[in-house]
Amino acid sequence: MRLSQEKAREIASLLNYRHSGLVVAVAQDYETNEILMVAYMNREAVEKTLTTGEAHYWSTSRKKLWRKGEESGHVQRVIDFYVDCDADAVLLRVEQVGAACHRGYRSCFYRKVVEGELLICAQKVLEPEEVYGGVSSGRG
Amino acid sequence: MRLSQEKAREIASLLNYRHSGLVVAVAQDYETNEILMVAYMNREAVEKTLTTGEAHYWSTSRKKLWRKGEESGHVQRVIDFYVDCDADAVLLRVEQVGAACHRGYRSCFYRKVVEGELLICAQKVLEPEEVYGGVSSGRG
Repeated sequence: MRLSQEKAREIASLLNYRHSGLVVAVAQDYETNEILMVAYMNREAVEKTLTTGEAHYWSTSRKKLWRKGEESGHVQRVIDFYVDCDADAVLLRVEQVGAACHRGYRSCFYRKVVEGELLICAQKVLEPEEVYGGVSSGRG
Repeated sequence: MRLSQEKAREIASLLNYRHSGLVVAVAQDYETNEILMVAYMNREAVEKTLTTGEAHYWSTSRKKLWRKGEESGHVQRVIDFYVDCDADAVLLRVEQVGAACHRGYRSCFYRKVVEGELLICAQKVLEPEEVYGGVSSGRG
């Protein structure tokens, strides 16, 4: 998916950035249907995502636009871009390179409640140190 | 999934309610893997969800706790409860009765970008008027 700037701006203008100028974005693996991560997008991130075909987010901790994978190489190629009924959440169906989670798991949702305890339920697919050079405080 | 109050409180205390006291919650159909909706939970909604086994959310528009389906009967039975790396988003794998979307679609993500236009890409599974008696301003 790579839209013209004009088309991307049109789509971006239909969204409702009602939470501090942001929409919620859910990334789902387009092949396995696994939920990879939840993040936020401002209007610029929506436009960049639609024009480049690669997921861009707004980092609420670093207060900056962030191309997913810019540091780690773990980019998300956007296959489909969905909008919810209230237009305040979007769903990206993506092709994920490597791992979505900066902790080395394929998905950020690597923990689940099992018999009343929160347990790790996935295997790491890589070691964060190998990707981020020991710095794993941000998502890559 | 039905935890004791004590266990539910323990799990709820592990989450990071950093966005106005809320975590983001994604509901995914446990059979089809379809993303049904995105909503928010405060700590009470997390505890209620874990103790009752039915999805509860915090309505940011109505400013109240909301048992999904309390009005429509379209409840979500929680099969699995996942937590993400930053503990500020949760993923519910649910058994959805009827439709998740108050507009009558199975999923709230019933629109997607097709050739630069935002188009409806799903069929309604019911008419909202039949469920909400003509009032479809809130999610049910």
